[in-house]
Amino acid sequence: MSRIAFVGLGNMGLPMATNLVRTGHVVTGLDLSGDALARLVEAGGRAGGSLGEVVAEAEVVVTMLPEGRHVESVYGEENGVLTHAASGCLLIDCSTIHVESARKVAGLAAARGFDMVDAPVSGGVGGAAAGTLTFMVGGSDVAFGRARPILETMGKTIVHTGGAGSGQAAKICNNMILGISMVAVSEAFALAEKLGLDAQKLYDVASKSSGQCWSLTSYCPVPGPVPTSPANRGYQPGFAAAMMLKDLKLAQDVASLAGQATPLGAEAAQLYRLFVDAGNAGVDFSGIVRFLKGA
Amino acid sequence: MSRIAFVGLGNMGLPMATNLVRTGHVVTGLDLSGDALARLVEAGGRAGGSLGEVVAEAEVVVTMLPEGRHVESVYGEENGVLTHAASGCLLIDCSTIHVESARKVAGLAAARGFDMVDAPVSGGVGGAAAGTLTFMVGGSDVAFGRARPILETMGKTIVHTGGAGSGQAAKICNNMILGISMVAVSEAFALAEKLGLDAQKLYDVASKSSGQCWSLTSYCPVPGPVPTSPANRGYQPGFAAAMMLKDLKLAQDVASLAGQATPLGAEAAQLYRLFVDAGNAGVDFSGIVRFLKGA
Amino acid sequence: MSRIAFVGLGNMGLPMATNLVRTGHVVTGLDLSGDALARLVEAGGRAGGSLGEVVAEAEVVVTMLPEGRHVESVYGEENGVLTHAASGCLLIDCSTIHVESARKVAGLAAARGFDMVDAPVSGGVGGAAAGTLTFMVGGSDVAFGRARPILETMGKTIVHTGGAGSGQAAKICNNMILGISMVAVSEAFALAEKLGLDAQKLYDVASKSSGQCWSLTSYCPVPGPVPTSPANRGYQPGFAAAMMLKDLKLAQDVASLAGQATPLGAEAAQLYRLFVDAGNAGVDFSGIVRFLKGA
Amino acid sequence: MSRIAFVGLGNMGLPMATNLVRTGHVVTGLDLSGDALARLVEAGGRAGGSLGEVVAEAEVVVTMLPEGRHVESVYGEENGVLTHAASGCLLIDCSTIHVESARKVAGLAAARGFDMVDAPVSGGVGGAAAGTLTFMVGGSDVAFGRARPILETMGKTIVHTGGAGSGQAAKICNNMILGISMVAVSEAFALAEKLGLDAQKLYDVASKSSGQCWSLTSYCPVPGPVPTSPANRGYQPGFAAAMMLKDLKLAQDVASLAGQATPLGAEAAQLYRLFVDAGNAGVDFSGIVRFLKGA
Repeated sequence: MSRIAFVGLGNMGLPMATNLVRTGHVVTGLDLSGDALARLVEAGGRAGGSLGEVVAEAEVVVTMLPEGRHVESVYGEENGVLTHAASGCLLIDCSTIHVESARKVAGLAAARGFDMVDAPVSGGVGGAAAGTLTFMVGGSDVAFGRARPILETMGKTIVHTGGAGSGQAAKICNNMILGISMVAVSEAFALAEKLGLDAQKLYDVASKSSGQCWSLTSYCPVPGPVPTSPANRGYQPGFAAAMMLKDLKLAQDVASLAGQATPLGAEAAQLYRLFVDAGNAGVDFSGIVRFLKGA
Repeated sequence: MSRIAFVGLGNMGLPMATNLVRTGHVVTGLDLSGDALARLVEAGGRAGGSLGEVVAEAEVVVTMLPEGRHVESVYGEENGVLTHAASGCLLIDCSTIHVESARKVAGLAAARGFDMVDAPVSGGVGGAAAGTLTFMVGGSDVAFGRARPILETMGKTIVHTGGAGSGQAAKICNNMILGISMVAVSEAFALAEKLGLDAQKLYDVASKSSGQCWSLTSYCPVPGPVPTSPANRGYQPGFAAAMMLKDLKLAQDVASLAGQATPLGAEAAQLYRLFVDAGNAGVDFSGIVRFLKGA
Repeated sequence: MSRIAFVGLGNMGLPMATNLVRTGHVVTGLDLSGDALARLVEAGGRAGGSLGEVVAEAEVVVTMLPEGRHVESVYGEENGVLTHAASGCLLIDCSTIHVESARKVAGLAAARGFDMVDAPVSGGVGGAAAGTLTFMVGGSDVAFGRARPILETMGKTIVHTGGAGSGQAAKICNNMILGISMVAVSEAFALAEKLGLDAQKLYDVASKSSGQCWSLTSYCPVPGPVPTSPANRGYQPGFAAAMMLKDLKLAQDVASLAGQATPLGAEAAQLYRLFVDAGNAGVDFSGIVRFLKGA
Repeated sequence: MSRIAFVGLGNMGLPMATNLVRTGHVVTGLDLSGDALARLVEAGGRAGGSLGEVVAEAEVVVTMLPEGRHVESVYGEENGVLTHAASGCLLIDCSTIHVESARKVAGLAAARGFDMVDAPVSGGVGGAAAGTLTFMVGGSDVAFGRARPILETMGKTIVHTGGAGSGQAAKICNNMILGISMVAVSEAFALAEKLGLDAQKLYDVASKSSGQCWSLTSYCPVPGPVPTSPANRGYQPGFAAAMMLKDLKLAQDVASLAGQATPLGAEAAQLYRLFVDAGNAGVDFSGIVRFLKGA
């Protein structure tokens, strides 16, 4: 078992840290929210004081932060992780951030001799609580080998995607497909309704045909065909539209910098922007079907 | 076994008619191409003379034609199917056409007392030859019940989608999802390459995650991950880009008339238009990944 | 002065017919609305009885109808204009319809020896009342020469665009540019606001620079810079969003049939669809700036 | 007359600096290219040594650099402009960069007591040589008042757009309209051709109607109607497609950060990406009409 510093106890971070505690790790948490820290303590973890102290004593540092700038400052600043971590400490960043940010921090870490992986997740709050997340892990074979047992405590599927930043690349590419296909399926259901085609019938056909996709068969945006999907509970998230917009924007930023055309990715990002701006930030991202119907 | 008139022996129609022959039906074909008729005769069928004669003797008429205007004229004109068919003859149109065209012809057929279904297919030339097509069937319960055994000779999955025209609606909605998701997956692979993420790694992640879709896991647009996909044989179709463009245009026409917004469907139709116009009409529709890469 | 049959006394047709009356023409109107007929009579015109009678006595027939199917039936049906018009009668269709519909009707007219022009207008209800419409006129030199003095009574700019259907083509191409550029200007003003750039300043720069366009300098979508624009009166039309959507859909139908990629035209059509479906059918089309802002 | 340090003697910077020399200013240039420096010397300017020395002696610093990161480092680094400039020195940045970058540098300059403006230009290489550029100027009234006479030496239209960064905001909003409207006009001409409508006829109609825009009437993308447009000389730039792509990407980056939906701006950026990637980086941006035609 390891001494772990866990930085960022938000909706995702807290249940992930809790799962580490359950497995027997000694987890010290850091967060601006006293409530979050209190809940970690309740679960058997510890509330940390300063970043420097907590990191200095850790064998593993796990971070789960909102954006690349937070990751860059937590690791890179004068009083950051890279300054205080003991030699040999393993660094795991689970945030979803810009590929370039991940590579920049990984470069700084490598320059100081640390093993580090970028390990963004998919699976949402439910997956974090259940310990069934998918981790997409970028980093050296050695770093991946060290990170894997820690990640297996929090997730079910752990994929080594290549060198530094490749975890972020895989996450963003996957979620771009997801955002586009959710809109595609929503357009199809909205059109079916206008044509007098029953939603269940469209589901029956497409789920066994070339239109099959996760957005249809695991997360169907209309009530009925998939009982567990948010459409059956008033589009309570799940995965909020604002979070999908964030990921699609990230994909566009990355594609723009990389010089790759992604016309449907761009259009999906614009549609989620319009959907969110129409007052739906907190609605599940599958609720875009209602926006397309003019409801 | 039935006496069947089969009108339209093209790339799809000929193997479909041949499967009917194999099962023991007496199939008389009609086509403008003498070659196609000769091949049906070789397979054990008969070459018909005039539409009127052939239809008059048939218990079942099956049509497989390029566009709605052909279907409307073959059925509706003075010397058409509805004039010559014997009372009780079953009518099966397997063409992919406009929902309104299908409903118009179905209305004429009903007015004259015929059972008729619209039964467009998916599965391509390969599925037609192997008898593994999916049929989406619109029509009354009685008409569907009569058509089912005939269709089972040519296909594996037979779905009753509702009343007249609903087969066309299901086909067009499914293929709109397909066209969009193929571009989505292609954008993701193109972006992954620019980001230095290995194609196989993206496949490994997305195929088990929320980006999973038929375009990825059954028809992957880059060589490697799915050995049977056209990407591994130089993008020989398969399903030609010009055919995908035709279906996406049909979906746009239908959506425009029905008054339904389908922004990604519209964008996908435009991209396939640009792709086809750049000289790729005969290339498999998954080849659009090369267009997105600027190759 | 001529005896003129005027078919279709809607928002546009009535003031157009009234201008013909004012110039001294003998105008007999036809419309399903008794109110419209009464107003024409008040203005000095006559209320017609049956289409056949009115047309039979006319030297000139002018039609102003909602869609191509109306034009096709009014001219082409057994009891239509082409059956009843006297030899030598001049036919002027001012409706905005599909290029193919216009060419079809023109072909029927030519086969019976009539001079006919398609003469769609721009300039809106205001231009119709003021007699300042622009007419885009397709037809032979002879037909154009005969139609011109009639059209000059109702409009200010009369452009001969070529053979039959070319007036419709010009109208639809112009209005596609208009719809796109209105969204473009709206996006720019919405972005400027978010960036803290004053709307008047953006107007001052762009109106004298490469961003100049009619949508900016004659019909500015934000209040202030152009006092006469609908933005200054709560987006009362002017030109209603539903009408712009109709023209953009027409352009997409025409482009789809002609096999021409028009990606921004397609996207603009989708955006107006979403805007109209959000309850804005009767709002001026420049009001889309509010939709883009999420208001 | 002033002692001016001019940093960045590229295609735009060199003719701008030369115009300053002609008016009698003492201009010392800085550039990595010895050729560019030599040409400035030929024109009567001076070749500078180190940035620190040249800036220290200047009353005015003008910068014309490719991207925000260059501007940030030239001004902000330890050995940069802000370190070496003498008290009271006026700072003018003519680069087209991200609004946030401009505001960041302006903030640093203000903190050290310097008057600074962001003053991006439009008008291209031709306008730079002829001294007819348009400057969009962000900064305080005092800074604008000091910069104006300098800018008038290089341009014809000088617009004060507001506080720091507003010049960049105006530039990016204007050029987003430009990029979109050029594609719109190109789509219209391509469609007109398919419909058999003569390009000159479309020009005649739209140039006097609601489709009028700078992209049509000053820079027409098809040969003929506007003799000076690049379409008449094989699409030699003018304004290269790669430059338009750069500006559209900048607009998307800015809009993404600001949280503003710009669906047509996004789509235009994607189309220029595809156009450039198809081998057209150096082609005039109006050449996109050929891409839309599949040529």
